[in-house]
Amino acid sequence: MTSGPQTISSRDNALLKDLRKLAQDSHAYRKQGRIWLEGDHLCRAALQRGLQPAMAVFQMSWFDRVGHDWTDAGGKVVIVEDALFDTISSLESPGRMGFVLPLPASPALEPQAPTVVLDGLQDAGNVGTILRSAGAFGFPQVLAMKGTAALWSPKVLRAGMGAHFGLRLIEGVLPEQLDALQVPLLATSSHQGDYLHRAKLPWPCAWVLGHEGQGVSAGLAQRASQFVRIVQPGGEESLNVGAAAAICLHASAAARS
Amino acid sequence: MTSGPQTISSRDNALLKDLRKLAQDSHAYRKQGRIWLEGDHLCRAALQRGLQPAMAVFQMSWFDRVGHDWTDAGGKVVIVEDALFDTISSLESPGRMGFVLPLPASPALEPQAPTVVLDGLQDAGNVGTILRSAGAFGFPQVLAMKGTAALWSPKVLRAGMGAHFGLRLIEGVLPEQLDALQVPLLATSSHQGDYLHRAKLPWPCAWVLGHEGQGVSAGLAQRASQFVRIVQPGGEESLNVGAAAAICLHASAAARS
Repeated sequence: MTSGPQTISSRDNALLKDLRKLAQDSHAYRKQGRIWLEGDHLCRAALQRGLQPAMAVFQMSWFDRVGHDWTDAGGKVVIVEDALFDTISSLESPGRMGFVLPLPASPALEPQAPTVVLDGLQDAGNVGTILRSAGAFGFPQVLAMKGTAALWSPKVLRAGMGAHFGLRLIEGVLPEQLDALQVPLLATSSHQGDYLHRAKLPWPCAWVLGHEGQGVSAGLAQRASQFVRIVQPGGEESLNVGAAAAICLHASAAARS
Repeated sequence: MTSGPQTISSRDNALLKDLRKLAQDSHAYRKQGRIWLEGDHLCRAALQRGLQPAMAVFQMSWFDRVGHDWTDAGGKVVIVEDALFDTISSLESPGRMGFVLPLPASPALEPQAPTVVLDGLQDAGNVGTILRSAGAFGFPQVLAMKGTAALWSPKVLRAGMGAHFGLRLIEGVLPEQLDALQVPLLATSSHQGDYLHRAKLPWPCAWVLGHEGQGVSAGLAQRASQFVRIVQPGGEESLNVGAAAAICLHASAAARS
């Protein structure tokens, strides 16, 4: 560490206000150009990927107990009094520490990469879950269409459990940009196409996952080269989109293994 | 409706306090013996299953617009001033109405039923997602081991999107009670068993889904008759348990279709 820790004990501290904004406003990372990773698990995942925090922020009593575990993390160390630290988080189970990292630069679209397209998904938990599945099943590129939940928000980061750091993430994508993809677009449907478990799946491919309520948008459906159905012997119940995504991405992984 | 609507305009109204407790404390339904369904989608799902609310609670301005859609729902009608209504919910996107229903009686365990066993899962979103998958893939019985998130809590109900009403749900199950099941117990593993997509799966069966961090407990692992692995060509990343559940339950449904 290049300098001693800074301790914050005032509710009105300017840095604390910035952190609250970053942690509580899911779009603040775009303005601030940096992201907030909350919780020791997620921070450790970032370190394992070779990332270095610009700032490591600790709840005071927790830092007193385990701070020595983190002395090699790098970055500026900020210690916040316990009651104040609790005002930072917007998570259901707040962490006791967090990292501030520069917002990773948006990469160029890779035309041949196995890809997941998020078509307007709104729920942070669903989006994070899908990023984990993308990482696990060998889809290194994720395109978030304009209107999709902000990928680098604290809630999506938490649900992603570190998957963000191994993926090529591109936000704010417009339908016509998908024309640059040189892999076929696949989408699920409730009424057309073969059943997934009997379908012949191309590889590489791009799976389109639709909005929780409205499904795949018209602009993307018309670009799809194949639709598949998921067998549901229990009835016409709809699946959670994170569940449907897992089934589709796993099917692609299974078909080539 | 048997009586005219009651209007609540005081923050300290006793019924409002009970509703807040029911909506915000995930275990309150056990004490009150009734459940809180929040949001028009979920309430409609209950009606479609033939359930009748004991009480239907509306945000005032919303009731003025669409109340006539709900006049056949039955039960006592309660209208709450807008600002007060917003004090009821604990959800991220609060509904504008809710139903109070009697807590359904716990059914007896059906030894032969295709079953999902929730082994200590904590996240309400995961549990609700898994209930939806259980319904969709033909697993009508769900056993929640003691220590699992409360199934009838408002958050699990919201995430379940109505799946609760089509399932045989049993809470507070102890490991030895599973010995009554006459179907084989299957569990996922990171290091043993065939890969799921190549495994021969018995039917009917019971899938065991483990705690988000600790996985399947020892007491249940020793009762499992088969372990399977989920292929993950992207690396050793862990999957969200709701994603893993969807893949396993779908595999069983696909194998018999």
